[in-house]
Amino acid sequence: MAKAKKKFVYFFGNGKAEGKGTMKELLGGKGAGLAEMTNLGLPVPAGFTITTEVCNIYYKNNRRYPPGLKGEVEANLRKLERLVGKRLGDPDDPLLVSVRSGAAMSMPGMMETILNLGLNDRSVEGLARKTSNRRFALDAYRRFIMMYGSTAMGVPREKFEEEFDDIKTRMTRTRLKRRTGRIVDTDVNEEELEELIPRMKEIYRLYTKKEFPQDPIEQLWGAIDAVFDSWMAEKAVTYRRVEKITGLLGTAVNVVQMVFGNMGERSGTGVCFTRDPNTGKNSFYGDVLMNAQGEDVVAGIRTPIHLSDLRRKMPHIYRELVEVRRKLERHYKDMQDIEFTIEENKLYILQTRAGKRSPKAAFQIAADMVKEGLITKKEAVQRITPRDIEGLFYPIIDPNIPADELREKLFAVGIPAVPGAASGHVVLSAREAERQAAKGKSVILVRKETSPEDVGGMHAAKGILTATGGKTSHAAVVARGWGKCCIVGCEDLSIDYEEKTIRVGETVLGEGDEITLNGSTGEVYRTAMPLIKAVLPRSYRTVMKWADEIRALKVRTNVDTPYDAENAVKLGAEGIGLCRTEHMFFDTEERRLAIQRMIIADSSEARKAALNELIPFQRKDFAGIFRAMEGKPVTIRLLDPPLHEFVPHSEKAQKQLAQALGVPFHTVKLKIERLRESNPMLGHRGARLCITYPEILEMQVRAIIEAACECKKKGLRVYPEIMLPLIIDKKELQILTDDAHRVAAEVMKKEGIKVKYLVGTMIEVPRAALLADRIAEVAEFFSFGTNDLTQMVLGMSRDDSGRFIPYYVNENKTGILRDDPFQSLDQDGVGLLITQAIEKARKTRPSLKIGICGEHGGDPATVEFCHRNGFDYVSCSPFRVPIARLAAAHAVIKGQGG
Amino acid sequence: MAKAKKKFVYFFGNGKAEGKGTMKELLGGKGAGLAEMTNLGLPVPAGFTITTEVCNIYYKNNRRYPPGLKGEVEANLRKLERLVGKRLGDPDDPLLVSVRSGAAMSMPGMMETILNLGLNDRSVEGLARKTSNRRFALDAYRRFIMMYGSTAMGVPREKFEEEFDDIKTRMTRTRLKRRTGRIVDTDVNEEELEELIPRMKEIYRLYTKKEFPQDPIEQLWGAIDAVFDSWMAEKAVTYRRVEKITGLLGTAVNVVQMVFGNMGERSGTGVCFTRDPNTGKNSFYGDVLMNAQGEDVVAGIRTPIHLSDLRRKMPHIYRELVEVRRKLERHYKDMQDIEFTIEENKLYILQTRAGKRSPKAAFQIAADMVKEGLITKKEAVQRITPRDIEGLFYPIIDPNIPADELREKLFAVGIPAVPGAASGHVVLSAREAERQAAKGKSVILVRKETSPEDVGGMHAAKGILTATGGKTSHAAVVARGWGKCCIVGCEDLSIDYEEKTIRVGETVLGEGDEITLNGSTGEVYRTAMPLIKAVLPRSYRTVMKWADEIRALKVRTNVDTPYDAENAVKLGAEGIGLCRTEHMFFDTEERRLAIQRMIIADSSEARKAALNELIPFQRKDFAGIFRAMEGKPVTIRLLDPPLHEFVPHSEKAQKQLAQALGVPFHTVKLKIERLRESNPMLGHRGARLCITYPEILEMQVRAIIEAACECKKKGLRVYPEIMLPLIIDKKELQILTDDAHRVAAEVMKKEGIKVKYLVGTMIEVPRAALLADRIAEVAEFFSFGTNDLTQMVLGMSRDDSGRFIPYYVNENKTGILRDDPFQSLDQDGVGLLITQAIEKARKTRPSLKIGICGEHGGDPATVEFCHRNGFDYVSCSPFRVPIARLAAAHAVIKGQGG
Repeated sequence: MAKAKKKFVYFFGNGKAEGKGTMKELLGGKGAGLAEMTNLGLPVPAGFTITTEVCNIYYKNNRRYPPGLKGEVEANLRKLERLVGKRLGDPDDPLLVSVRSGAAMSMPGMMETILNLGLNDRSVEGLARKTSNRRFALDAYRRFIMMYGSTAMGVPREKFEEEFDDIKTRMTRTRLKRRTGRIVDTDVNEEELEELIPRMKEIYRLYTKKEFPQDPIEQLWGAIDAVFDSWMAEKAVTYRRVEKITGLLGTAVNVVQMVFGNMGERSGTGVCFTRDPNTGKNSFYGDVLMNAQGEDVVAGIRTPIHLSDLRRKMPHIYRELVEVRRKLERHYKDMQDIEFTIEENKLYILQTRAGKRSPKAAFQIAADMVKEGLITKKEAVQRITPRDIEGLFYPIIDPNIPADELREKLFAVGIPAVPGAASGHVVLSAREAERQAAKGKSVILVRKETSPEDVGGMHAAKGILTATGGKTSHAAVVARGWGKCCIVGCEDLSIDYEEKTIRVGETVLGEGDEITLNGSTGEVYRTAMPLIKAVLPRSYRTVMKWADEIRALKVRTNVDTPYDAENAVKLGAEGIGLCRTEHMFFDTEERRLAIQRMIIADSSEARKAALNELIPFQRKDFAGIFRAMEGKPVTIRLLDPPLHEFVPHSEKAQKQLAQALGVPFHTVKLKIERLRESNPMLGHRGARLCITYPEILEMQVRAIIEAACECKKKGLRVYPEIMLPLIIDKKELQILTDDAHRVAAEVMKKEGIKVKYLVGTMIEVPRAALLADRIAEVAEFFSFGTNDLTQMVLGMSRDDSGRFIPYYVNENKTGILRDDPFQSLDQDGVGLLITQAIEKARKTRPSLKIGICGEHGGDPATVEFCHRNGFDYVSCSPFRVPIARLAAAHAVIKGQGG
Repeated sequence: MAKAKKKFVYFFGNGKAEGKGTMKELLGGKGAGLAEMTNLGLPVPAGFTITTEVCNIYYKNNRRYPPGLKGEVEANLRKLERLVGKRLGDPDDPLLVSVRSGAAMSMPGMMETILNLGLNDRSVEGLARKTSNRRFALDAYRRFIMMYGSTAMGVPREKFEEEFDDIKTRMTRTRLKRRTGRIVDTDVNEEELEELIPRMKEIYRLYTKKEFPQDPIEQLWGAIDAVFDSWMAEKAVTYRRVEKITGLLGTAVNVVQMVFGNMGERSGTGVCFTRDPNTGKNSFYGDVLMNAQGEDVVAGIRTPIHLSDLRRKMPHIYRELVEVRRKLERHYKDMQDIEFTIEENKLYILQTRAGKRSPKAAFQIAADMVKEGLITKKEAVQRITPRDIEGLFYPIIDPNIPADELREKLFAVGIPAVPGAASGHVVLSAREAERQAAKGKSVILVRKETSPEDVGGMHAAKGILTATGGKTSHAAVVARGWGKCCIVGCEDLSIDYEEKTIRVGETVLGEGDEITLNGSTGEVYRTAMPLIKAVLPRSYRTVMKWADEIRALKVRTNVDTPYDAENAVKLGAEGIGLCRTEHMFFDTEERRLAIQRMIIADSSEARKAALNELIPFQRKDFAGIFRAMEGKPVTIRLLDPPLHEFVPHSEKAQKQLAQALGVPFHTVKLKIERLRESNPMLGHRGARLCITYPEILEMQVRAIIEAACECKKKGLRVYPEIMLPLIIDKKELQILTDDAHRVAAEVMKKEGIKVKYLVGTMIEVPRAALLADRIAEVAEFFSFGTNDLTQMVLGMSRDDSGRFIPYYVNENKTGILRDDPFQSLDQDGVGLLITQAIEKARKTRPSLKIGICGEHGGDPATVEFCHRNGFDYVSCSPFRVPIARLAAAHAVIKGQGG
């Protein structure tokens, strides 16, 4: 049987294209786009695309082209020449083409482009005559030699640049022409270009041992080779690995007629958006630079004119553009970013793509397009990214501040822990932060590290900066809970608490000096930068409602106070997935002393007495949280951190404590000394505290159930879920669950009220995950504590990992881990363990309620993982709740193949 | 069909028994033993056994006996009476019986015994007349009332004791009889007993509301009820749980004719061993106490006579005993511990069981019995326990020191980390230990904790005592490697380094005072106790050779120096499973400075320069180890601990370091400050050091391969295995393995020598175990680092777990964990992960070599686990090597159902 001859080249032009928009795989994104626009009847410069399949064959075949390609390319070139009415290399009126790469997925800047192909010593003069602009023609030739030499033939680009700089330096000396303060390419005049071109060709000859090719066909094949070769260039290979781009055949090559916007006052070049990219308003938006090429816009020589000016100046072009806008939006059903060129009063559309937009605009456009019937609600939800939500909620540094100024004021760079921006006066202690904030001053708390004792000051500060710690250090976790700008692990920072200074290299700031944090990038500036805060648009609520309708996962929140709980409900939280009880003990001096007395106590009785003092406080806290969460489940984790986190470590503070407790200093010191641990993360904490001191569990369960009874008496619906942390064994859980039920029964009997509550466990130690089937025999719910689980499964302390994690996730170094495992769940390792655990646990107890309450609960990739693996809910910081809601909807759509 | 009537009672006596030795399940150990001895023709007192099945029915049937039991018991009683020629309760010459429990497995002291049953107000006088010893008869009655009242009827024992004490106190006052310094039961005379008996019966009546039963049949059933009830008493249930005894039907009840050794000078009681339990020599060994009962031996009133005296005194009894010895050893094929009584010139054998023996005797007897054709080599190996080996190797405190003295001199109790005993003068610093030891003084190093810098002093000391840490703390691990007596976690100990004192409560010792450690129990004595050191008998080598022939697992060792390597080979090590390279850096000031310079270095170049200084040292170390291990594989782990373990932390030492390195103090301080970690266990260590500082790996691999080349040039066979610690990912391992191969290739090329080496990894992070299939694509061997794996899987820092582990393993508290997971592998959790990992890994690479190099490698239960799960080898401290060899043989035998 005769095999159908494979088609390697697809032509487009004059309103008809052999390819179409759906053929991205074969034609690449650019080629498919050009074909699609051509078919839509848009004025696209004509040309042809060599398929990605050729690239594939090229590499499979030891860099040789398939037979027949040569003929097909040249046939298409002739077709192009016929259509345009010009010939490549024609000494009178030459056709010029661009040769560009274009794979199925965008790889910006990664691959090669050659412009102005077709110029040679003779045709350049033809172009000069035809355009009556010899400088333009010479400059085009100069550019072509440089591009072709460096891109296609591997001549070091800087060799050409040096020659060019040499000319420019001479110009500076002789002409002292200083319009913009520096000499730019366009300042080079015709004579100088005439002098330059032979020198460029000489460099070419020097490095390639060949003359610069005068044959346009030879030029063309050189350029095509260069594009295909660029596919396997190191930077492209690395880019694909970093971006996880796999499964592509290769790049296509687009050979397209050149059009020029710099052919005089009836020419120009521009970019427009089909809707306002800042507000999302449905109005036409764009700029045009007359008599210019794309690069001139970058050079910033002249001020562009607005579309409204174009309307006055060239009404028919404007009308044509409006029609293009209408067609493209209808066609792509999304706001488009369109590049166009006007060549001698004729409009050419060079490219269209989905336009970048502000977060606000993203919501507006998505909501509007549903209203206009362009897209479905599901599509609207899909269009919103987590970054859009972040961008809506967090203040940012005014984007209009010039890059130079930012650079100049940069003080240090740390690890961005909580996005947004904050500025204020430096304070170096939590107490000072509270004091200054009380006076109405904006302050930034700067510490080596933070501890639970600093929480008051952290809350009072506008932003937090620490010299140590990673993204899940104490500072980061607490700040994230509040959505408060935070930078951690700023290791260059030396803090001198006595001198009250902070220093980076030679730069020293003192307490009171103003700084600005960019929590999205980790940059710290030594000045107060102007900040901008976005307002939630109505379209936010509209689109988020649609997301809620789509998602299957519930979204809960991690909060510890009634105030935060109320806030979280406003952000859409459907319950509390993690209420940490330890922060409650730092609220007042009274509470702090009670817990410290408990810790210093020598007997179970003394401990009980101290704990009894805490019951009223805890009960009040829980009642407040139940009220804020009325009708929603509230998971309360019993005391988790090691006890040494609750006691002072300086001798002075220990002496004060001894005095306050009426205990000899020696006793306090010895007791605290004994609490010290080598690896507190793996120490005496969590359920282990309840096993050794059962009275702690008793106090907390009593307070929870008493608070629940109190609320029920007031007619509120309360659903407490008591959660035991750090469980490693079924028997351990059974002992503590029995204790909890016993205490709860006592309270309910005394109060004469029945409370529906659950007792479950965090799964945060690998052993618990491994033995999930047995543990599920006792636990009524699982909540995966992925922070600790990650630490233990990877053997990485989150507080210490800052020193080596960058080497593990940075693609240029090793790329061992896909992401920071404390930011996005390590699905390969930790995820595998979780999947196994769920499978085992649900075999034992099919109805087991399963959630996640680590910081990962607000990470979109993790949310999708949870959706795929049958979780009932995710739980995250209040400010991540909207992101989790969106991600949960995205997960459903993705699961449906959307 | 008629069902065969179940037999509930088994008779024995007069050379014939209905049961036999193999019926342990049904008759219990004691009942089966009595039946077996009867059948062997030994003079056993007659009696009958009620089966364990009755116990089972009793509990299944709400504490009711099966129909027919009553008749069967009473028929057997009549049979017994006929055989003995006496009747229960006969007022002239009563039969007395004992009623004892006896399950299939020994539960010493856990269940009930009632003696002298059959006495009442009338028969006691008959006994008095018949024995011509009224005091004896009255005392027997007194004992019976007390035992029956407390055991069968639940009268508080102390009520009886109080009455008895009252009599004794009166005696003291009136007679001032003080032979042994205190009044003992046998001092009470006939009259006093006559007065006492009615008071005992009165107490009985007071508590039971019934008269003391005079009917012997009522007594008998009361006693039988008591034995069956004791099966479910709390202490028995707990004992079975602790000892993991399951699957038993219940206890049997043995009703046996009483015989008395205290009927005059032709009576007596004794215990003999069929071979010498101290030396194992095949000679008859035992003591007899004439005119006495078993309890009198305990009371220590008279000195027993030796068997040789008995031979002179009662030659026919002695001959009879010798015949019993011969029969029992032939029969049981093991050294027996025999209890006997002589009643009026007639020998009765009451019990026989395998005799306890010293470690030396255990080997001697096992070896001899093989020679004598009594047992097989396999059985000989089975007879040896790990404790026997420990007992052979470690010195012990002289067992003849009276308990009182030990009690008086007890100073503190810590966690026993390395068994054996040591005594010497207290020193509080490693330097002082070295100094004193150099002078020939025996010293005990006492520290809060130890660190790698203390290793020299630790080596110089006879023993090590630390106030903190668990069984796998630095002190414990290092000491175990040397088999050096060590006690850790002695939390009551306050150490004052300035005052140079150690204190427990009010007792203060100073540097130079002598103490003794018992590393087997954790006890510390405030004096120098005399120590005894065993010598390896020849039989040790004989039996261990047999063990080696049986086992499948290879046994390697964990050592870091040529000296230790040589020693380990002598102990039977077949290679090194773990050679830690970090200890090598502390050997001399020069090395220490080089590694510190490397750490303080600011650039890769400076680091390389510092590392280059270390190469000659490392090469020398490795060459020495290769030589000591000639022809055996040597696994070398690259640098593992976090760098802060190598630098000083006091300001003074940092200043000295700055001076020595010629670097500003500020630089040193800042650098060290930055190395501090919150959880060093999970920090910047292991492979992470090589990822961030590839020059470390380069230096170490270079030194290893250079050393190997050097040895090969000298004709030695070397098999280095390069091991990467703390791996979490295949890619990470690939990067480092590639590095290692590159360096090795360079060295081999330069040296012109080919070295056969492997590159593999420790599996010590849960993620590596989870992804074992992928990691095995790269690794040529796996070595499970179960210390760290346990820490991470259980989320327990070994250094901190001392505070709560006791609550987790102590059965009286929670019994959550079967054993300390740092001593014996947590097979449920960590073991499950390992099993999964091996299965996955061998799918990828069936030939993968798999070992274990955690401290668990020397734990018998873990060795069995490794054997079952297809490991190639275990590796442990040199002093555990013999234990591992034995355990590996035991595992094979167990696997064969042996």
